[in-house]
Amino acid sequence: MVESLRRGDRRALAQAITLIESQRSDHRESASQLLKAIMPFTGCAFRIGISGVPGVGKSTFIEAFGNHALTQGSRVAVLTVDPSSPLSGGAILGDKTRMESLARQNNAFIRPSAAGGTLGGVTKRTREALLLCEAADFDLILVETVGIGQSETAVAQMTDMFILLLLPGSGDDLQGIKRGVTELADLILINKADGSLADAARITAADYQSALQFLHPRTEGWTVLVKTCSAVEDIGIADVWSTVQDYQTFLNKNDQLEKRRGIQAKTWFWEEVSESLLAKLRRHPKLASRIVEIEHQVYAHRVPPTVAAQDLVNLFTDTDKS
Amino acid sequence: MVESLRRGDRRALAQAITLIESQRSDHRESASQLLKAIMPFTGCAFRIGISGVPGVGKSTFIEAFGNHALTQGSRVAVLTVDPSSPLSGGAILGDKTRMESLARQNNAFIRPSAAGGTLGGVTKRTREALLLCEAADFDLILVETVGIGQSETAVAQMTDMFILLLLPGSGDDLQGIKRGVTELADLILINKADGSLADAARITAADYQSALQFLHPRTEGWTVLVKTCSAVEDIGIADVWSTVQDYQTFLNKNDQLEKRRGIQAKTWFWEEVSESLLAKLRRHPKLASRIVEIEHQVYAHRVPPTVAAQDLVNLFTDTDKS
Repeated sequence: MVESLRRGDRRALAQAITLIESQRSDHRESASQLLKAIMPFTGCAFRIGISGVPGVGKSTFIEAFGNHALTQGSRVAVLTVDPSSPLSGGAILGDKTRMESLARQNNAFIRPSAAGGTLGGVTKRTREALLLCEAADFDLILVETVGIGQSETAVAQMTDMFILLLLPGSGDDLQGIKRGVTELADLILINKADGSLADAARITAADYQSALQFLHPRTEGWTVLVKTCSAVEDIGIADVWSTVQDYQTFLNKNDQLEKRRGIQAKTWFWEEVSESLLAKLRRHPKLASRIVEIEHQVYAHRVPPTVAAQDLVNLFTDTDKS
Repeated sequence: MVESLRRGDRRALAQAITLIESQRSDHRESASQLLKAIMPFTGCAFRIGISGVPGVGKSTFIEAFGNHALTQGSRVAVLTVDPSSPLSGGAILGDKTRMESLARQNNAFIRPSAAGGTLGGVTKRTREALLLCEAADFDLILVETVGIGQSETAVAQMTDMFILLLLPGSGDDLQGIKRGVTELADLILINKADGSLADAARITAADYQSALQFLHPRTEGWTVLVKTCSAVEDIGIADVWSTVQDYQTFLNKNDQLEKRRGIQAKTWFWEEVSESLLAKLRRHPKLASRIVEIEHQVYAHRVPPTVAAQDLVNLFTDTDKS
């Protein structure tokens, strides 16, 4: 599988991602081995996170930008972090027809988010899928967020550059600036800057650009730019591409890319530690009946959750592991 | 302190919240004792989460709704879950003048979110503050989210009812329905239904009401209603109040309130277990130097984060605890 991946075989890549998404424990074991094996072939792509509220035109932008990147010789992979609704397990609007023109290209690979699961689970699988795409020789990876929730922070933490799409007019009272996500952005694009919205887009861009001076840039030494574009009309996309190039050059020149990725690896590591510790406690044979009991007391409000938690943790760390 | 709290003393309540927000370990110990002591006096209030994107008018709504509740004999506490920006540690728009008329009332208590910290930390402190408000005899607790991120899920998980505010027109393409948060709502309000937006608000409400039939309601047996209101003009607020009453009656009649709170207590419990386990591992004296070493290898991409995490967890559970 490693060999087919290294040849850039898209079918092998799709299968490998299916493997890492599997919950079966034998699959998890194979996935772990696969990840270890491809480690030396990862890290070469430029990773871009793309966010914005639903309706801002993320898919259209990714299609336009991705197609432009292909003309510049890139191989483009698109991943999505979309922890589905906690209740129904999915969006009701189908995504099947998304990015059709990009999906038809030989040097493009599009993979929607894994279905179901928590944000943590989806994030973990996307991080691993990203490594697989790199091993399969994709050199530009676009990770789309659904534009809500912690998914934005999660995606910012697995990418080198974070692009935030906004709508014309949305900045008029600068409410958007309150959103922590604005501060994650390395580049802000006011999309739909065409037709009757073109003027509004320019004003919005200027408003944001002047508001940004009050914020710390995410990347020291880099001035966050606010630009307008129209993904539908393909206006400003080449300009976005050249800004992305500038940013990449900037990161490389300052060793900031390596530093950022190192910090990201550490964050990922600690998340894995936390998850794995909890799994071990929950599976501990000697604690099983005690856990049922404590959960029952917590459910019945007989003991404060904080106190019960402390008791269980002490029990776990004091118990002989076997 | 428990006695002053039980008398409904707002100053004692403010001090108690400051105590539970403190990071000092002796304060955490006192906070823990205080929480245990007030446990029997908690659980009597009705807890409402209120969400919506920035600019939808959450503060204005809470002020109008809170003032209405006061006229109905309620004692109203308002808490906020606002994990500040990960970089600058705060919003740049001041919140000092918010909810002025509500803040002046004797039977109202308004407490902004604790400053700084992770969503987990802010959520934990808000949950504890909520219990303190109940012990201080507040019978209606409104928990506001900033309308972004996982804060919505966190607030839904600590309240009995979740109200989502939307803007007129935002539903025209029903993009909003993709957002998981819509499915958290027990009541959806189209705010700013006044003046020239009144008609748009009615259309938006009808669009959402018909889209909702495709979604599972959060509470079985309850039909999620979509209503219009104008917090600024005080239109429809009394109607919201009576819907809230209906919902509360419904929950009580079906024992769903107890059930929901039991599940919430369990969720909280497991979050505490996870956090406390990780803290214990990080503080373990015998692992300190090993952790530094592993972190370094992860940072330098010498080992995949997943594999390193597994190693550290095994080391922790195999090591003699002391």
